Amino acid sequence: MRNLLLTLSYCGKNLHGWQIQDNALTVQEVFQNALYQIIHERPDIKGCSRTDSGVHANMYCVSMKIAHPITEDHLMMAMNRYLSDDVAVTDVRQVPDDFHARYSCKGKEYVYKVWNSRVRNPFLQDLALHYRYEMDIDKMNREAQAFVGTHDFTSFCTLDKREKGDFTRTVKYFNIKREGDLVTFTVAADGFLYNMVRIMVGTLLAMNNGRIEFGTLPRIIEGENRKLAGPTAPSCGLYLNKVFYQ
Amino acid sequence: MRNLLLTLSYCGKNLHGWQIQDNALTVQEVFQNALYQIIHERPDIKGCSRTDSGVHANMYCVSMKIAHPITEDHLMMAMNRYLSDDVAVTDVRQVPDDFHARYSCKGKEYVYKVWNSRVRNPFLQDLALHYRYEMDIDKMNREAQAFVGTHDFTSFCTLDKREKGDFTRTVKYFNIKREGDLVTFTVAADGFLYNMVRIMVGTLLAMNNGRIEFGTLPRIIEGENRKLAGPTAPSCGLYLNKVFYQ
Repeated sequence: MRNLLLTLSYCGKNLHGWQIQDNALTVQEVFQNALYQIIHERPDIKGCSRTDSGVHANMYCVSMKIAHPITEDHLMMAMNRYLSDDVAVTDVRQVPDDFHARYSCKGKEYVYKVWNSRVRNPFLQDLALHYRYEMDIDKMNREAQAFVGTHDFTSFCTLDKREKGDFTRTVKYFNIKREGDLVTFTVAADGFLYNMVRIMVGTLLAMNNGRIEFGTLPRIIEGENRKLAGPTAPSCGLYLNKVFYQ
Repeated sequence: MRNLLLTLSYCGKNLHGWQIQDNALTVQEVFQNALYQIIHERPDIKGCSRTDSGVHANMYCVSMKIAHPITEDHLMMAMNRYLSDDVAVTDVRQVPDDFHARYSCKGKEYVYKVWNSRVRNPFLQDLALHYRYEMDIDKMNREAQAFVGTHDFTSFCTLDKREKGDFTRTVKYFNIKREGDLVTFTVAADGFLYNMVRIMVGTLLAMNNGRIEFGTLPRIIEGENRKLAGPTAPSCGLYLNKVFYQ
């Protein structure tokens, strides 16, 4: 059995996230079905994380152990023939037996895209949040630096049964950049809670709108209470962008 | 009656070009229906050109004379509420009575996008041609300079009933640029024949593949015969990018 690491990218517009569900098409299902047609195996597939319905991935990692002797390159090309157009395999490589796409992961980077114009962009339907109001990028950037470091992020987590135990995470960087009318939020951390990036972005946008006061982010974090933070920004703007190993 | 110039952008993925047709949804139909809901008028709408099914526009211009007193800005915002998500109005302004979106046009710029990688890009489905083979950008760029200037472009026109009379056009510039795996062909001319850009791109790609010899472009142009040129590249990569007036 070889342990393989596969790197994917996918457009989440028509997909219900990574993890297999009843009655909804997910990336994992699309992936497993394509794989079965090529190697006639149904290995246990480890995804690097869950992603929500509508969320995209520029980079998503999967590991699995297979018996079939197909070369890595052939597997990549064959997967791209059998997968639907909204999912692509961009790399396949052999990894040590103890490698696990989720448990070996040292951190991840997400980006959140906002189309900031009075007029929508027809090419970014379901690929960015359309936000009509002026954005004070510098002010949001300064505020967002309060996220950086090791904190309990309870205020930035949708509480549900999935999250248990420790809500402490370490945010490595958080920055916001404008290129024309496209504004991109970029955040890296050792791990993320459920909806964490979307609530971070939603809170900064609520500050930009004046619904939450600028300067209060440290207090919102310290409060450890979801109600203190802003709304969860829509899934369409969110991209898993990088997955870090080693 | 005010004469108005409206600037649009649209994603052509699910649309059958500009011009109204039976049994196929076109940009003109979507536009007229939205307009009627706002001003209850059905003015004669002049589009700056036809575009084919599946072709996109970063900029498309329309002129029309209306009696309704709605302000230009209100019309823009209202149109964006009533239009489908794949069409947007980005500007509305009053123009002199004799302005005509098509006849006043002095030239246009098209871009053609190619995703040049062994693996498809899930975010460019129907938004770029996926081309797997290595591209010699420098060689194609040098070859393409033969397009620049005033020529009879019969070899680069799908002959049909639409095209009559003079096949002479003046190409102002033609360049090809790579940014990562995305290659963009940009061409401007005083006017374009039916399928002209797509045949130009198809011919350069056929040269890149070795199916047509590099260095023969001047002879293909002089031959004034569609059969000498390469295939028509797919519509999905083509964008009307700029429309020049005055």
